Amino acid sequence: MQSTVQKHGVAAQMAVRPAAGTRRAFAAPAQASIARPSFAKRMQRGMTASRVESQRVVVVRAADDKVVVIGLAADSGCGKSTFMRRVTGIFGGEPKPPAGGNPDSNTLISDMTTVICLDDYHSLDRNGRKEAGVTALAPESQAFDLMYEQVKALKEGKSVQKPIYNHVTGLLDPAEEIASPKILIIEGLHPFYDDRVNELVDFRIYLDISDETKFAWKIQRDMAERGHSLESIKASIEARKPDFDAYIDPQKKKADMIIQVLPTQLVPDEKEGKILRVRLIMKDGKKLFDPVYLFDQGSTLSWIPCGRKLTCSFPGIKMFYGPDTYYGEEVSVLEMDGQFDKLEELIYMESHLSNTSAKFYGEITQQMLKNSSFPGSNNGTGLFQTIVGLKVREVYERITQKEVVPV
Amino acid sequence: MQSTVQKHGVAAQMAVRPAAGTRRAFAAPAQASIARPSFAKRMQRGMTASRVESQRVVVVRAADDKVVVIGLAADSGCGKSTFMRRVTGIFGGEPKPPAGGNPDSNTLISDMTTVICLDDYHSLDRNGRKEAGVTALAPESQAFDLMYEQVKALKEGKSVQKPIYNHVTGLLDPAEEIASPKILIIEGLHPFYDDRVNELVDFRIYLDISDETKFAWKIQRDMAERGHSLESIKASIEARKPDFDAYIDPQKKKADMIIQVLPTQLVPDEKEGKILRVRLIMKDGKKLFDPVYLFDQGSTLSWIPCGRKLTCSFPGIKMFYGPDTYYGEEVSVLEMDGQFDKLEELIYMESHLSNTSAKFYGEITQQMLKNSSFPGSNNGTGLFQTIVGLKVREVYERITQKEVVPV
Repeated sequence: MQSTVQKHGVAAQMAVRPAAGTRRAFAAPAQASIARPSFAKRMQRGMTASRVESQRVVVVRAADDKVVVIGLAADSGCGKSTFMRRVTGIFGGEPKPPAGGNPDSNTLISDMTTVICLDDYHSLDRNGRKEAGVTALAPESQAFDLMYEQVKALKEGKSVQKPIYNHVTGLLDPAEEIASPKILIIEGLHPFYDDRVNELVDFRIYLDISDETKFAWKIQRDMAERGHSLESIKASIEARKPDFDAYIDPQKKKADMIIQVLPTQLVPDEKEGKILRVRLIMKDGKKLFDPVYLFDQGSTLSWIPCGRKLTCSFPGIKMFYGPDTYYGEEVSVLEMDGQFDKLEELIYMESHLSNTSAKFYGEITQQMLKNSSFPGSNNGTGLFQTIVGLKVREVYERITQKEVVPV
Repeated sequence: MQSTVQKHGVAAQMAVRPAAGTRRAFAAPAQASIARPSFAKRMQRGMTASRVESQRVVVVRAADDKVVVIGLAADSGCGKSTFMRRVTGIFGGEPKPPAGGNPDSNTLISDMTTVICLDDYHSLDRNGRKEAGVTALAPESQAFDLMYEQVKALKEGKSVQKPIYNHVTGLLDPAEEIASPKILIIEGLHPFYDDRVNELVDFRIYLDISDETKFAWKIQRDMAERGHSLESIKASIEARKPDFDAYIDPQKKKADMIIQVLPTQLVPDEKEGKILRVRLIMKDGKKLFDPVYLFDQGSTLSWIPCGRKLTCSFPGIKMFYGPDTYYGEEVSVLEMDGQFDKLEELIYMESHLSNTSAKFYGEITQQMLKNSSFPGSNNGTGLFQTIVGLKVREVYERITQKEVVPV
């Protein structure tokens, strides 16, 4: 890693310092052995990396001080912030921008989690992009070296001075200090694009909104609420598409879990994007999490829970579960088409899912109720975002061997 | 009932006498109460009927002496005898014709069960039908009054002198004595056609073979094995169809359980009738049995068990389960398309079914293995016939309050 850093010559850009008042510890004695070889391997790797590092900064991390890095990739305007509120909500506390800092900060900090927006690593501001003739989606607009150095530093327990991309002004604002959290979530357009950054990520999530749904949502927001014309909306989508397809979309192949949002199949010609078919694609055989399943692991199932015991209003709910391949890798797919109408429908659904990583019966329902004002709370986006949040907790617990008390 | 008997003027035809050495008992004291109101009602009805009867023959049945009557309706050549072997096999013992009797007897007797073929109640023999210009399917060819009187007598614990229709000669042979069994199974073309007979039946089964499958089977048997021409097979099917549709088919509406045999949907254009889609249609809300379900009672499910955990060869197995209506009545439907390839597939299937009435884990599989030489042992016909057999046991136990030890 050291050589990679030098090869890319980013040391000069780095803004790294040891975290305030923490972590000048030595490697902790090996913990009570748990039969998870990959975890042991990860620990070894982590400690080796720290020892190389320690030639410079003398920070050797104890195993139980590990910072877990979560990546969320998605296009702009696809509900990443709602997603993040669902995920961080599982760890408790209200995520807030850094106290007393830039009011336009994109960072959200709670007790255990810090969410940073990768737009902060734009190397070009709005004018700069205009002059250079590049979009915000292009790799040329991103400071990947700095992104790598700072994510690496945060993972090593150090604080960083992270720049701020001001979405209001389109300018790069002065940096803000970010302390190393327990769980670092990097969300944005390119969390897995740069191999060095990608390798720092412990759990990769991709939010994949279908073109039809994106279009329906954009019409809803930009036409109905902001008065844009249909033509201008189409034009703006078309303009983004080549770079999106070239740089953003391919990252989904690297993701551990993909949430796919598609038009419903329950209602013919539903064009408003309100009733959704949502698929949770989960890589199989990963050591840090177990895929959720419905009724019978490894088989293929479709399930319409609405019937004699559970009555639902039109169009009801249809679930699907089954194995599949995703870009050559084995995955499990859980799908929900339709929407919840009543609380009992949600509880019923939850009660038939296995390996959700919920810590008690009804935890998913409880989380969904807590966040019931968020968009997507009555459909598969909310359900699967909540499940992914529980998987983030599972990943954290497996890496750190610490237990998170449910809130 | 008495008046019905007299109105139809069948007393003269009756050949009834008290069963040898049994059942001159009085009503037994009420058994330990079990919360099954309908059972109590049935008991009351049964005892009332017996008291009316006792004005003539002084036979009052104890509740635990009840004879349970099972009816199986189906067309000829549809596998009723295989079905019956599966059902009676659940109660143990090898069903045999009455000892020392007519070698062409259609009756099969084992320890607990007696299966009588309703063809024995043909009122016209083959020549008589030819002369009268009626088929064996027509009500005019059946002695329903005698059928009613004898089934009623057997149910009341009395022996009967039952005629024999000789399928080899087409003649009506001298009667054979049939003693009242614990479980009387009447199988044939018209078990539910006559309301008086129908009312004596405690559990009604209809074996419904689709026209396509009947045709494929007939071709297999009559053309491949017996050298008939395709035209003659088609002609014989066409000739039977009007009477079948008029007199046999409508009985399925009265059935408690229907086994429907259809062509597979897994293989396009499978015309040999070897791969089958079989549906078990179960009336809901009956007091004497509970419908089987898959995973989640009352919901709609399709399930392809073959996948990551269970591998199957082509075309595999597809199960379906869901609520439906059948001639205006609520039913649960369980469906199996495809066939078992290996024993483990059958066990896997069984392990995911609920309310099968099996008395131990693997009882269905054990029964299927025991009968593995029977036709349909690798598909839904064998599976559902076995399940129906377990339901017959359940019905018997609920009516008699006696427990049957699994064999």
